[in-house]
Parts: sequence; C-alpha cells; structure tokens
Amino acid sequence: MKIAIDAMGGDQGPAAAVEGTVAAARRYPDLELVVVGREEQVRPLLTDAPENVSFLHAEEVISPEDEPVRAVRRKARSSIVTAARLVKEGSCDAMLSAGNTGALMTAGLLIVGRLQGVARPALAPILPTVRGKGVLVLDVGANMDPEPSHLVQYAVMGNVYAEKVLGIRRPSIGLLNVGTEAGKGNRLVKETYPLLSRSPFHFIGNVEARDVFAEACDVVVCDGFVGNVLLKTLEGVGLGVFVQLKEMFTTSGAGKLAAVLMHRGLKEFRRRMDYREYGGAPLLGLRGLVVKVHGASNGRAFDVAIGQTRKFVSEHVTDLMQKRLKETAFASADNEGTRRAREEG
Amino acid sequence: MKIAIDAMGGDQGPAAAVEGTVAAARRYPDLELVVVGREEQVRPLLTDAPENVSFLHAEEVISPEDEPVRAVRRKARSSIVTAARLVKEGSCDAMLSAGNTGALMTAGLLIVGRLQGVARPALAPILPTVRGKGVLVLDVGANMDPEPSHLVQYAVMGNVYAEKVLGIRRPSIGLLNVGTEAGKGNRLVKETYPLLSRSPFHFIGNVEARDVFAEACDVVVCDGFVGNVLLKTLEGVGLGVFVQLKEMFTTSGAGKLAAVLMHRGLKEFRRRMDYREYGGAPLLGLRGLVVKVHGASNGRAFDVAIGQTRKFVSEHVTDLMQKRLKETAFASADNEGTRRAREEG
Repeated sequence: MKIAIDAMGGDQGPAAAVEGTVAAARRYPDLELVVVGREEQVRPLLTDAPENVSFLHAEEVISPEDEPVRAVRRKARSSIVTAARLVKEGSCDAMLSAGNTGALMTAGLLIVGRLQGVARPALAPILPTVRGKGVLVLDVGANMDPEPSHLVQYAVMGNVYAEKVLGIRRPSIGLLNVGTEAGKGNRLVKETYPLLSRSPFHFIGNVEARDVFAEACDVVVCDGFVGNVLLKTLEGVGLGVFVQLKEMFTTSGAGKLAAVLMHRGLKEFRRRMDYREYGGAPLLGLRGLVVKVHGASNGRAFDVAIGQTRKFVSEHVTDLMQKRLKETAFASADNEGTRRAREEG
Repeated sequence: MKIAIDAMGGDQGPAAAVEGTVAAARRYPDLELVVVGREEQVRPLLTDAPENVSFLHAEEVISPEDEPVRAVRRKARSSIVTAARLVKEGSCDAMLSAGNTGALMTAGLLIVGRLQGVARPALAPILPTVRGKGVLVLDVGANMDPEPSHLVQYAVMGNVYAEKVLGIRRPSIGLLNVGTEAGKGNRLVKETYPLLSRSPFHFIGNVEARDVFAEACDVVVCDGFVGNVLLKTLEGVGLGVFVQLKEMFTTSGAGKLAAVLMHRGLKEFRRRMDYREYGGAPLLGLRGLVVKVHGASNGRAFDVAIGQTRKFVSEHVTDLMQKRLKETAFASADNEGTRRAREEG
C-alpha cells in the first residue's frame, strides 16, 4: 500500500508532516509513504527516515490564501496537485494534506474524480465528544447547498466508514436537526427524514447538536454549512475552555497547586477534546482516498491520520462504498416504483 | 409598565417563575407584574408577594409536548394564550414564558402580530462567550428557511436591541459563515452579504462560529436552523465540560482538594457559561414584546429576564424597530432605484 503525504500544508510546516510520516512508517513496515514537497525544505528533514519513506519533489505550493479552483488549475506542479495525480493514476492508494481545504476538495473533485452515484463528496471528520468516543460527522463543508439525496449518499458512505474504519457494528445514524420529533427543521431535513427512514441503516431519527456531543449516535448527517458551524463551535468552545482553565490555574498560588493536583485529569480531558487525536477527515465519495489533516496538526496528528488511512485502504472501503451506493440507488428506485404502483393500482 | 408572566412553563414549574417575579417586583417598584396560571398551583406561592404583583387565572396549560399551532388555537384559556392576549390588547406591555417555545412563537405571530415590514420574527438570545460579554444571536429557531431580506430585517432589529437594551454604541454586526472571506458560504449568506454591506450598520462581514464564542462581534445574524445548532452546541459543550470537571473533582482526594482551591474560579467560569445569567430571548419583530425564558430557568433567570424586559419597554424598542424597518425599506428601495437608474442611464 502506497500513501502520498503533502508536506507543504499546515501551520507547522513540513516538520510536522515528516515527523508523523516517519513515526507511521516505523509502526507500519508494510506501508510505502511518499512525502511530496519542495526539495530544499523537505529533503533535509528526511535524513533519518526509514526505507519505506520516499520523496517526490513538487516545485509549487498552494497557500491557504490561494483561491481553490484557480490554484488547482494553475499550480499544476504544486504538492497538492502532484499528490492527487498519484492517486488518480493509481500509483498511490491515498493522499493526505493539511493544506488549503478548498484546494484539496477541488483537487479531489477535478483530479481524483467522484464515485458513480455521488453528486458531491463530503468532508467527514470525527468530532470530539464528552466521553472521548468521537462522532463521525458528514458533511462539514464540502457541499454548502445539498439536496436530500446527497444527504442519503452521506449516510451510505458514513455507514461504511464507521463500520470498516472505526469498527462499529451496525452504526447508529442521526440527522442533525433542531428537535428530535419528526417534522421538525428546515426544508432540507424535512425532505431527507423520510428517505433515511426507508433506508436499510440503523437510522435513529433526528439528533440535536447537544446530543451529538453527548454521543447520541455514531454518525451524524447534515449539510456542509451547518456541519461546519457545528465543527467550529466545538473547536471554539474547546479552545475557550482551555483559555479559561489556564487563566484560573496560573493567576493564583492556589490555582497552581490545584493544577499540580489535577494534572492527570486535565491532560486526559484535553486529550478527549483534541481533534488531533481523532485523525484526519476523509473526503468521502471520491474514486481514491483524499484525507484532510487539520491545519494545526502536529506530528502525532499526521501519524494517527496515516494509521486510519491504512485501515481505510486495507478494508477496501472505496469499493464497498461504490457497491452500496449502487444498491441504495436500486433500492430507492425500487421503493419509488413500488410506491407508485401501489398508488396507481 | 405592566408585564405578564406565564407561571406554567419551564422545567421547574410555577415556583421559579414566581420567585423571579417577586424578586423583580421588589427591585423595580415601578413595575406591575401579572402572574398568569392555574389558581390552585400559583396562588399559594404568592402569599408574600409585594403589592405590585397581581394574579390572573388561566385554566389550561400548554405542555412541552403539545403541537404548537394546534395548542394555541385550541387552548384559548391557556396561560400562554391569555398572556399573549394581554399584550395584544395593550393591557400589558410585554409577556414572558419558559413554556413550549413553538407555542410561544405561534402565539406571538397569531395573537400579538408582526411589525410592518417583518416577514417572520426572530428569536434572539444572548449566548455565552469566553470572557462573559455575551453575543446577541438572531435567529435561533423561529424561521427555518429564511430569505436574504429576512436576515437584513434581523440586522435592523438586532442593531436596535443591542444599542438600546444592551447599551452598545454602534454595535458590530457579523454574518455567521464558514469562512471570513466574502463569497464564502451557502446561497443564503452569499446573497445576504452584499445587502448587509450596503446597510448603514457597522457590518464587519462574515464571522466563523469559533469567533462568535471569542467575541468577534456584538450581534450575529444567521438562519434559524444554523442558529439553533450554534446555541445547542454551546449548551451541549458547556454542560459536557461540567460533567467532565465534576468527575475529575469528585473521583479522587486530590480532585476534592483542587476543587476547594479552585472554588471561586470555577464558580465564576460556570457563571460565564450559564445562559440563565444572560436573561431571556425576545421574539423580535412583533407589535408587542414576547420573551422566551429558557426552559431550565430558575428564579434568578426570570428575575434577569424581567429586568431586560423593563429596559426594552422603557426604551421604546418596538417603536424604534418599526421606524428603522421603514427607513431601511425606504433605503433599500431607494438604492435599488438609484442603481437601476444608473444602469439604465
């Protein structure tokens, strides 16, 4: 199995990507990891890398400020585009990047290409939850104005991912809504609800945002705009809470003593709230695997994300998604036919 | 000034509403407060109430499970409908309720009625922020599928409310979005952005959910579905954090000692995250004032909400909103005319 890692994205520069790649390469000797980036910045970091890490030069860099579609079209020799091409051509099974999210989604869409039956891919991270179990949420920003059928596709893909990569038997799937009762919500979720009710999944109905954090279900389906707000509120509040705690623990002698007493507990708490522990966010619905690693990722985050990617590829998740998408298309067409026949006859 | 308080809503029953009403009545002798509810449950609680608290019997109760529109139509003698009628008839200036939110919104819409130029009212609570300043968010659930023009109406109303009730000079207004750059987001916010840019307000552009919590602006404008997710994520995470901290502080001797050391800091932190300290959520855009008090409210929350309501009424906020809405309608019609004239000429 061969995985391309874009070393040029992320706030911490190539060092974090290389550190994570080297750690993962040591842990999984069966992996071949290709680090893609600018030679002068990346090569020197690779001197101690094990043999299953190789390097590929990419002259250009897509910056966080670049306009995504233009950048992917014009910067053909950028690390993101180069890595996406490796996946497209089949010489790599997957790619990871902590760079410009929009450009990564564009490269996935335009270069790697969509699965049959997928209108728009979904960005699917695992968000932190209160007891550290995590919840798979899709979409968090790939598709801003989805149709009900897109949300059904998310459910199909999320279901496979949770089963195969996260190891959850018969994952519970919830529809993010403003109340738990059927009939609640905006036009999109009202129309999506009956479609999911008829699906073969373990659909538990509507879930409210507070219950998502309280681990009400394994997979949450929502539109990309709302999912992005959910993600960023969680991040913002998580960060805000730490700012507060830190202030408390450093402004007084009593606080400093309390910090010593609570050291282990706070560390564990921080770990649970830390998205980096939950790995990368795959772009589901593409013909190859493209994984977005959080921009603020350290080496550890890359390492976890590579481990997840390995699992994704070895479980043939993409093929299974394609199969299930076709079955679901059949199933819903079939239901539709049955219903119409019943009404007519 | 006369304010009606529905005593039958809320998880804590009539006791919380009465406690808050009595406290507010003592603090503001200029207020006349009318407690509305079932005689046998509410009367006994009012024995020690000051003279500016009166009682009005309402035979029926709308429960949290009641379907809103049906309940308002059929339960004409319920406390919510009775209080709304007092506002409609002008015998009360405002009403508060911790009951069924949907029913309260319906009563506001059908009984109290909308201001001219308002398509749908907005529910506008103050959400907790990291440093305790709070942020006014509208809408958080009154309008699930708004149009861009509705969001402009929210900005008009939020601006007046922040200025007059919260005492903020030239409040900064942000549009909730998935990124700060113009051109980001779904159809709704993309079309709303240029309208707000042309408005006379201190519009600071797009704000991300994490920046809302970090106090990036005074007023946030968003659709009711997204606003509800924002609200409930904040609540859910706030609650989750306390569950975690409590666990830490009670499972070990060191934790218990740390809790003693950190007592004041934790209390202050809790206060900042406690929505009850931020008062009630007015339904903005009605011809009278209807205030939703959180279902989990205690006496203190009712007390704070009544204080806010007093300020709202004494500052003639409803009249000012009506005036500004008309001006804005003029202004945008005018702009539209000017633009068309320019294009044509």
